[in-house]
Formats: sequence, structure tokens, C-alpha cells
Amino acid sequence: MIIQLEHNISDVQRATLAAKLDTIQYKTMEVSTQFGEYIVGVGKKEFDIRTIGTMAGIRDIHRVSDAYKLVSKKWKVDDTIIDLGDGLKIGGGNFEIMAGPCSIESEEQIENTINHLVKNGIRIMRGGVYKPRSSPYSFRGLGIDGLKLWYKKARAAGIKIITEVMMSEQIDDMLEYVDIFQVGARNSQNFNLLDALGKIDKPVMLKRGISGTIDELLQSAEYIFSNGNERILLCERGIRTYEKAYRNCMDINAIAILKEKTHLPVIADPSHGIGVRRFVESIALASIMAGADGVIFEAHQCPEKAFSDGQQTLNFDEADALFEKMKRTFKFKQNL
Amino acid sequence: MIIQLEHNISDVQRATLAAKLDTIQYKTMEVSTQFGEYIVGVGKKEFDIRTIGTMAGIRDIHRVSDAYKLVSKKWKVDDTIIDLGDGLKIGGGNFEIMAGPCSIESEEQIENTINHLVKNGIRIMRGGVYKPRSSPYSFRGLGIDGLKLWYKKARAAGIKIITEVMMSEQIDDMLEYVDIFQVGARNSQNFNLLDALGKIDKPVMLKRGISGTIDELLQSAEYIFSNGNERILLCERGIRTYEKAYRNCMDINAIAILKEKTHLPVIADPSHGIGVRRFVESIALASIMAGADGVIFEAHQCPEKAFSDGQQTLNFDEADALFEKMKRTFKFKQNL
Amino acid sequence: MIIQLEHNISDVQRATLAAKLDTIQYKTMEVSTQFGEYIVGVGKKEFDIRTIGTMAGIRDIHRVSDAYKLVSKKWKVDDTIIDLGDGLKIGGGNFEIMAGPCSIESEEQIENTINHLVKNGIRIMRGGVYKPRSSPYSFRGLGIDGLKLWYKKARAAGIKIITEVMMSEQIDDMLEYVDIFQVGARNSQNFNLLDALGKIDKPVMLKRGISGTIDELLQSAEYIFSNGNERILLCERGIRTYEKAYRNCMDINAIAILKEKTHLPVIADPSHGIGVRRFVESIALASIMAGADGVIFEAHQCPEKAFSDGQQTLNFDEADALFEKMKRTFKFKQNL
Amino acid sequence: MIIQLEHNISDVQRATLAAKLDTIQYKTMEVSTQFGEYIVGVGKKEFDIRTIGTMAGIRDIHRVSDAYKLVSKKWKVDDTIIDLGDGLKIGGGNFEIMAGPCSIESEEQIENTINHLVKNGIRIMRGGVYKPRSSPYSFRGLGIDGLKLWYKKARAAGIKIITEVMMSEQIDDMLEYVDIFQVGARNSQNFNLLDALGKIDKPVMLKRGISGTIDELLQSAEYIFSNGNERILLCERGIRTYEKAYRNCMDINAIAILKEKTHLPVIADPSHGIGVRRFVESIALASIMAGADGVIFEAHQCPEKAFSDGQQTLNFDEADALFEKMKRTFKFKQNL
Repeated sequence: MIIQLEHNISDVQRATLAAKLDTIQYKTMEVSTQFGEYIVGVGKKEFDIRTIGTMAGIRDIHRVSDAYKLVSKKWKVDDTIIDLGDGLKIGGGNFEIMAGPCSIESEEQIENTINHLVKNGIRIMRGGVYKPRSSPYSFRGLGIDGLKLWYKKARAAGIKIITEVMMSEQIDDMLEYVDIFQVGARNSQNFNLLDALGKIDKPVMLKRGISGTIDELLQSAEYIFSNGNERILLCERGIRTYEKAYRNCMDINAIAILKEKTHLPVIADPSHGIGVRRFVESIALASIMAGADGVIFEAHQCPEKAFSDGQQTLNFDEADALFEKMKRTFKFKQNL
Repeated sequence: MIIQLEHNISDVQRATLAAKLDTIQYKTMEVSTQFGEYIVGVGKKEFDIRTIGTMAGIRDIHRVSDAYKLVSKKWKVDDTIIDLGDGLKIGGGNFEIMAGPCSIESEEQIENTINHLVKNGIRIMRGGVYKPRSSPYSFRGLGIDGLKLWYKKARAAGIKIITEVMMSEQIDDMLEYVDIFQVGARNSQNFNLLDALGKIDKPVMLKRGISGTIDELLQSAEYIFSNGNERILLCERGIRTYEKAYRNCMDINAIAILKEKTHLPVIADPSHGIGVRRFVESIALASIMAGADGVIFEAHQCPEKAFSDGQQTLNFDEADALFEKMKRTFKFKQNL
Repeated sequence: MIIQLEHNISDVQRATLAAKLDTIQYKTMEVSTQFGEYIVGVGKKEFDIRTIGTMAGIRDIHRVSDAYKLVSKKWKVDDTIIDLGDGLKIGGGNFEIMAGPCSIESEEQIENTINHLVKNGIRIMRGGVYKPRSSPYSFRGLGIDGLKLWYKKARAAGIKIITEVMMSEQIDDMLEYVDIFQVGARNSQNFNLLDALGKIDKPVMLKRGISGTIDELLQSAEYIFSNGNERILLCERGIRTYEKAYRNCMDINAIAILKEKTHLPVIADPSHGIGVRRFVESIALASIMAGADGVIFEAHQCPEKAFSDGQQTLNFDEADALFEKMKRTFKFKQNL
Repeated sequence: MIIQLEHNISDVQRATLAAKLDTIQYKTMEVSTQFGEYIVGVGKKEFDIRTIGTMAGIRDIHRVSDAYKLVSKKWKVDDTIIDLGDGLKIGGGNFEIMAGPCSIESEEQIENTINHLVKNGIRIMRGGVYKPRSSPYSFRGLGIDGLKLWYKKARAAGIKIITEVMMSEQIDDMLEYVDIFQVGARNSQNFNLLDALGKIDKPVMLKRGISGTIDELLQSAEYIFSNGNERILLCERGIRTYEKAYRNCMDINAIAILKEKTHLPVIADPSHGIGVRRFVESIALASIMAGADGVIFEAHQCPEKAFSDGQQTLNFDEADALFEKMKRTFKFKQNL
């Protein structure tokens, strides 16, 4: 059950509501975000929700039977639109592409990538400065200095930044320079990190766990929302299966299902979703047809020389072709 | 290694070839199909293939390092087109839709379905008369009598029939009435059945195993081809994963990868691929963007009353809308 | 619902029962096996089962809510014991080992294997004469001639034969020479083959599908039982997962769960269950602790030269050590 | 490549080594732990390792081709023994059991559990005070106060504490009260947490990820070791598969394989490994036969009333029986 409060609800009205909630013995949690104030109630007792819905100070009330509540479309039917400023929006009919390297490597690489994006009218650049690596002996990214360098170049060119945050201690330092915080697949159930990201007012793109369920992804998003941050994007990036012909199995079903279950925008990551460069295009276009509100993929001036594994990374010529096809496909889908 | 022989190769030329093959100690297998004669050689010895390629009576020779040979695109670069007669072709730019019920149930159901297909310009009807069921106590289909009844109605309406064959003993009886034999997911590695289907001259649509790999699917197709039947279609129908939000996980990656690995047409089955009726459309359209040469899906006049589980079955109104969207999507993809 | 009939039930009593069953509108199926006569009823109507249980000619009646019925322990609480003759029994406290090569290769190999088994007091030899192979170009076994040769040697030495049958047409020819028919993982849902094996009076060992569920395995066993053959063994042989450190993932959980769900004996196949020779012992012993009534594994005089892949095959010295440890472990478990 | 330095290596000897390493162009990392000083080198150049092995100040040098190095048995052949003090050791022939509730709930619950353990001679108690929960609305544990209360009772009774740490910020507060830090499955690749746990001198039990590979588990352990902490235990707790008959699939293969790949002790968690209470015993005993050095499982005075899901939790009577059987099974295995 979700109760949305009026912005101007009075203390007396709050008290009346609290008294009412006591009588139905629901476990309640107050949630205050950038955009609203809610009470999430978990309980089983049957009661007429109109007895609350009609109380003064209450905007509306909905039953939500899912394990996740605030991110459910059962409560909020309209698609959430993530507004990044400067006219850049994702969701609710606004399609955006995010591209760039796996890792931020150098000033020259940043410049080349930005030029490439600008030339194609792409306004969000991806890149890692903190890299989660299976082995402690692998390159772990340029860190905050790399981010600051990147930020300077990106801002000058009107490019937004999406980059991964790995631990809550990094958030403060990164906050000024990041437009969308990405939570990686390995941290998809790092609940303390999710709590912390719920307390800031920057968008968060949450990747599905390597073998995460759709339900777990939505509950992880609920962590962020219920801590106060409504600006969440979800990302399907492939799951682990027995098949060895590709790196991950892009779960195209998940895109369609997420679009039904949640009001949050859904981003497809075909680079990780198949993990083999020459198939990225097909999977990107299929994802758009399945309902994706955006696509994030890896592009590098020279994939063979990328610091991280470039096997799934397009070069700039390949990316050029894909940008255009994706935009046309989204338009086609809108008009279908 | 695949050696394609000239149609008019002489006995002397054959003997010369055999002698040559002896010297390189390759294990060889002669394959004779509707369309050609081949020698498949498996071995490791390095030799200059031109020494065979330039022999009289040899059309061409190719190395194929894959475990499958004759179905590989490394040998045959041009897409195979399955010609069903009456101007109906699949593959190589020809897109076809197959629709109909899970099970053939009654004369009335057959007629209603045919009328529905004809109205929409759909020319291939699916339906089961032999049903593989997990439980021995479930409905197992109307059998050969159902097929004959169906055939009479379908022929009169110019509709082709695709239906599942479960065992080699059924082939002879079915042969006259079937346009495409379907091998179900559970029989994807029923090698004796594949052998038998390799000996007839009717197209075979081979479904991927429930947890079959792409490689296994292609090797199963190799069974059919190497027994003499080149007219094979492959079908992606979803795989088993840990996710419980849907019945199967449509492996969109497999479609893209199969289109690279093989010259055979690839059909998408979104009904089984997600298993939930209201998502079938999204997955069908995504599959086309990923490269599918055709789509097979379940439609029933009244899914709620279907003999088999109708959870993944569209009603005729839903199917109407989907037919049109699929055709437009294929055309869009062709022109992208 | 399972109704077991008395052997001497009269026609009048049958008619009375049929009339009674009509009134509750259950779909019923008559099953007649080597050991008994049953009526399996599927339906939802609530009724007092004692009204049937107390009728003349009825031995007993049980509700079985599982999808499988006759193989359920809810109906038959006592473990089924498979009697192979000559004092050889499996199940109900009788532990047996089956060992031998992947494929029967030659007279010499048969003799060596038999000598090895006899020396160790092992009385069941495994070996394939019909081999399901992913590729049509692989060795497919010596066929019926290999079986006859094997049979001659085995009978002389008092050794029983377990071997795989791949299609129903093979059963008649094989019948005389086989003590246990094995259904391989790829044929675990080859329902026509299961039907056919239900009509003979030889034990059948049914392997779990490569990604088969426990429930599907039991329903496949139900096919055999409901066709008339109660002499069934189930075999856990590992399932497909994402992990690449081994060939299959031995599902130790399945052994424990099967022992609760069914009265049929459960055999562990550690060779396929892990697929790496040097770990077969650990998995064999663990399987016994989890409840296995028997173990089947691959042993070859020279695994490196085995016709089929010998990666999971023990040599005779390794097998010697394992036989003894398995027997001691079963005894330890019995007394724990 | 791992180079172990002598404790008394001189600065000159270090410099000579560094110069030598420069010539072979290996990327090197210095590791200093409680027990030794190492240089881990990653590179491809072939060279005679004896030229380093015979240098003054070098204890030994080994090639390690695995992605993980310091946790590999290729380098350290002897089993690592985790010494918890008070004569309590795990690994290298020392078997230990850890039992207790999912969550620490109350003083009374702590006391009851401790009494139960003491009665059975069990010396390590498990219990969560920080609980990773899929939903933000679930009970998240009593936190540091719960841990302090538990510690007081446990120390008085001579019981050691194993409990989960979820983020690096918690470590300092917990350090005094914890004997083994547990890293949960969801944090198995939380590399910052692993880094932090590598910097303390308390044992760490690292659980395999929900769908983590064996290789990833070992690389995660390498994070801890390479940061300075050699006292690591690995825990197999079941993986995600398609099967729905249990919660997780205990990967018995992984236990056998880990015992070959690493010198670290391997603990089995049958509670999560199958997730169904009445099968925990079978899986525990099987795990011991497969090579586990210890077992951790959930026991609660009243599983039905446990704060967290008690479905996989034994009551004290069931636990009583299991303790004894596990000890006997380990002894049997040792003498087999």
C-alpha cells in the first residue's frame, strides 16, 4: 500500500492518518523524496482503502501487491521521465543513447570520444573511472582524477557523464562531476550502496545482477526510491546461462516485462548483453523494439588497444552507423 | 572439409578423388541430397586444398573448422531459401509467418483458424496432432486422423501445414499431408528421428533443445543434411534459465549468432520464447530486428478454452494486429 | 488418485467401480503391470475416498496430488526393489555398482572389463552399443552385433548388462541380451520410447534430462509405469549450469529429494555428474551419503584410448580403489 | 609467478631482485601479510625461474598459471589451517561445525542457542546482525548493539562468533567482537569490501556468489590475500539453476574442485545449499564426503518463529542429531 501525501498536509492531518494506520496494524515507512512524500505500508489486513483515500491531506492511495512498491506501475501509471537538464530527458517517449569506452584512459581518449559523440549528436558519455575487476591485479581505473579531467572536457562540449560508483565513500567526491551514477551488476544487491544513492539528488542507473531476477532488480530500485531518490533508471545487461557462444544472454524478455511492471525507464546494454562486438547492433535494435527507452554501449577509438577487454567494443565507424539506426528504429517503433 | 562434386562426375574421377583422400587420411562421408553430392572429410592433416579443388569432377572445396559442416556458412555463403511451392519461400529476404493453435482440436477450430489466416494473408498454419506432453495423462493430440481432416481444409484454402513429428514411424503416414515437419525441443537430439527426416524430401523445422546450445542445434541440423535433406529451418524458442518471471528466456542472441554461423533460415517462436501472451508481440518484433527470417506463434479462437495451456496463445484480434506489425517491421529492417 | 485393484476382482465389482467413478467425473486410466492393476484418476471433485476404498475388489486407494502418480511415494511408501535375478537386487537397502566403458569397442575390451569387474565382485557392466552423439560424424557404436558379443561373454561370467536404447525399433532385437535398458539424458522426454519401454518386462534406468527438472524426470517415469512396467530406476547425472569448471553439475540435492518423492531406486552417475576423472571418487561417495541406491560410472582399461571421450573415465586401478570405498561408504551410511 | 621473500631480506637484496624483475618486464605487486612477504608477478616472458629462486633473500619462487595466484595450491601445497585460538582450528584435517540462527534476535535466543551449542560441544556460533535483504522493508538485523550483546554471552561460554559484514565502514566497530567475518553471497564481488578485509588480521569466510564461478570465488579470495590477510575460508552455498524443487543447487562438484585448486579451507553451507529443512542433513553429510573442512548451518529454537525465513532452519532436536552424524562422517572419511 502506498499513500501519497499532499505537499501541504498539516500536522493534525498527519496525526489523524497515523491513528488510522495504527488501527489496521500495517508496518509503515515514511518516504520523502525530491518530488513527494509517501507512506509505504506493508500488511495483510483487509480494509476499505477509500477510508484513507478520502482523508484530508492525502493525495491518493493504492494497493501494491508486489514485493516492490514505489517503483511499481500498479501505483504510478505514468512513465517516469529522468530530466538531466539542458533539454535532455529519458523515458516517457524520450529515447537517449549513452556511448563511450569501458574505461577512461587518457586526455586524448576523452577528447576523441567526445568529438565522436558531438559529431553524432549523442549527449551522454559512458566511461569507468572505478572499475570492478575480477582480479586484484587488473587495471582498476583512473579514479577521481580521471573523472575530474573527463568532467572538464565533457562540460565544455555539453556532454553528460554516466559512470560507475562502487562504494558509498566515493559518492561525495564524485557528486559534482557525475550526471548519472551507475551501479554495476556486481553491486546490484549492495544494499548499503543503494541506501546511500537514495540520499542524493542525482539520477542512478541500476544494472541487473549477473544472475539477478527481475524481481530483485525492482526491489533494489526500491531501496533507492524509499531512501528518497526517485530518479532511477534500470538497465538490462544480459544474464548468465549455460550457453558458451556468447558472454552473457541478453534477456530481451526482461525489457518487455520491466516496461509493464515499473514506471522507471529501461536502458538496454547490448555490449555486455551479448559481449561480442559484431552482434551488438542486432541486439541494440532488437532491444529498442522490445521497449527500451535508451541504449548504452561501448565504443572506443581503437578497441584492440582498450585498457579493458575490447572484445565487445565498437570502433567509431561502427558506432556511427549504429547511432543512426537506433534513432530510426525508435522512431519506427513509436509510429508502429 | 567439404568437397562438392559436379553432377556429372565420372567413375574414374571419383576413383582418383578417393585415392587422393586416402593419402591425406581424412575420415570421409559421402552425402547425397536433393540438390547435390558432397564429401565431408574430418581430419587434421594440413594439405593444400587446391590440389583437390582443381581436380576434374570437383565443383569446389572448403575448409570448415566448425563441428558442423554442411550447415555452416563458412562453406555456403548464400542464404538457403526454403521453397514451399505456390510462390511461398522462406529465407534469403523472404519473410513468412506461421500461426495457429497449439493443438488441432476440431473441424470447427480448423475452419475458424484457416479463415482467420486467409483474411490476413497468412499462408502457413501451425498446429499439433502429436503432442509431446510431460505427463502421460494429458491430451496427446488427434493423431493422423486430425492431420487428414486438417489437410483437406487447408489445401482447399491454399494454406500450408507445419506440424510436429515425434517418432520416425510416424513419418510415412504423415508425409503426404505435411508441408513442414517440425522437430520439437524435446526431440532436438533424438538422432534417429533426425536421421529419418534426413531421408525425405520435405522441409524440416528443427527447434532448439530446451537447454540446447547453438552448437548442438547446428549439429542436429547436420544430421538431417548429411542424411540427404538440405531443406532445414532452425527455430529459436527460448531456453531455460533461473528466472521465474517468464516460462522460457527468448535467446535473442542466438538469432543474431545463428544468422552468422549458418546459411539456413532462422525462425523465432515468441510464444514459447516468453510464454506469456501479452508479451508475445514485443518479442516477435524484437526477433525480427535481430534477424529472424520468420515467426511462428500460437493463436486460438479462444485461448482460455484451448485444449493445451493457452497462457501463451493470442486470440484472433491480438493476432490480427501482430501480423501487420511483423510485416512492417521486416520491411523496415530490410531498408534500414 | 490411485486405486489398486485386487487380483481377483470380479467383472461385477469392476462395473460397480466404474459406475461410482462416473459419478465423481474423474478422468481415469487403467494400468496393468507385472505386479498389479491400478486405476489412475485425475480430477478435482472432493469426495470421501473411503466410499471407494471399502468397495469389494479394491485393495486400496490413495490421493496423490503430484503431477506424477504411480511413481509417487505418497501412494507406495515402501521402496521398490529391482530384482535382476541371481540374487542381484537394487533399492530398499540393496546397493549395487555398475561400471564399464562408455562404448563397447572390441572383444578384448569386453573381456578385460569383465575380468576387472569379476575380480572386484561387481556384477553389472555398463557399455554403449548405440551411442547418441552430438555430431553425425562421430562413432555411433557397434550396434546389435556388439551387444550379442558382449552378452555371450557377460553371461558366461555371471555379469548383468545395462546399455542404452535410443529408439523403440531397437527394443525387440535387444530384449534378449539386456538386463537393464538405459534411457539417456537426451531421450528423457522421448515419450514414444518411454511408452514402448513401458510395455516390456525388463528394468529401465531413466536418466534425468540434460536440463530436466526433478518433476519432469518423475513424469517420464510415470510414462513407463503407466504403460505397464513397474521396474524403473532413476539416474541423476548432472545438470547444465553456467559454471565452466566442470562438464555438468552433479545435482546432489536431486538425490535427496528423489528419495523423498518416489519409491523408485535412485542411481548416481558421477562420471557425467562432474565429467572430470580425478573428481569422480569424491562425487560418488558424496552421492551415496545423499541417499543413492547405486552408482554407475565409467571405467576403461585405457581411458586415453577410449573410442569416446575418456576425460571422465577411470582406469582399472582407480576403479579398484573406488569399488571398495563405495561399498564401505554405503555400509557406513546404513549404520549412521 | 609468486616470489616469497625471506623475513630478513636486505635492502640490497631487494634492489637486486627489483633490477632482475625489470629485465623480464613482469608487472609486479608487493604483498605483505601476517605471515610473509611476497611479490606477485604477472607477465608472459619465458625465463628460467631458478635465476631468481637462487638469489639471496628469496625463500622460493613458483609459476602459477591461474588467474588467482596466492590462494592457489600450485604455489602452496600444504593446506592452510585457520587458527581461531583456544585450540580451535579449521582445515588441514581439522573439522569444525558452525551453527546458529539466521538472525540474532534477542538475549533469550542467544542464550538458548549458546546452551544448545555448548551441550553438543560446538564452539562456533553463526548469526546475522547486519542482514542483506532483497526488500528494504524487511528486518535488517540488530546491528552493532546486537553483536555486543551476543559477544558478551558467547565469550563467557567459550563460543566463537562468525557474522556477516556488509560494508567496509562496519569493520572497525565490529572488529573486537567478531572471530570470523563472513562475506555474503551478494557481496562476493564487492571488491572494496574485500580490499578492506584484506587489511585486518581476523579470519574471513567468503561465500561464493549466487551465480559466481569457482574461478571468481578464488579471485575474490585473492583480493583479501593480496591486501595482506592470509586467513581466508571459502564457502560453497549453492548456486542458481533452472530447477524449482529447491532454493539453490548445492554445487557438490565445487567442493571437490576447490580442494584441488586452493590451499584454503572449504566450508559447506547445506542450509542455503538446498534451502529446505528436511534435506539439510543429507547435503551436509554428502558435503563432508566431497571434502568439506567444515559445515555451517542454520539452527533455531523455533524455526517457525524465526525473524527471517525459517524454511531452511533446523530446530535444536534436528541439529542435535546432525552434529553427531557430521563428526562421525568426517572421521569415517579421514580413515577411508
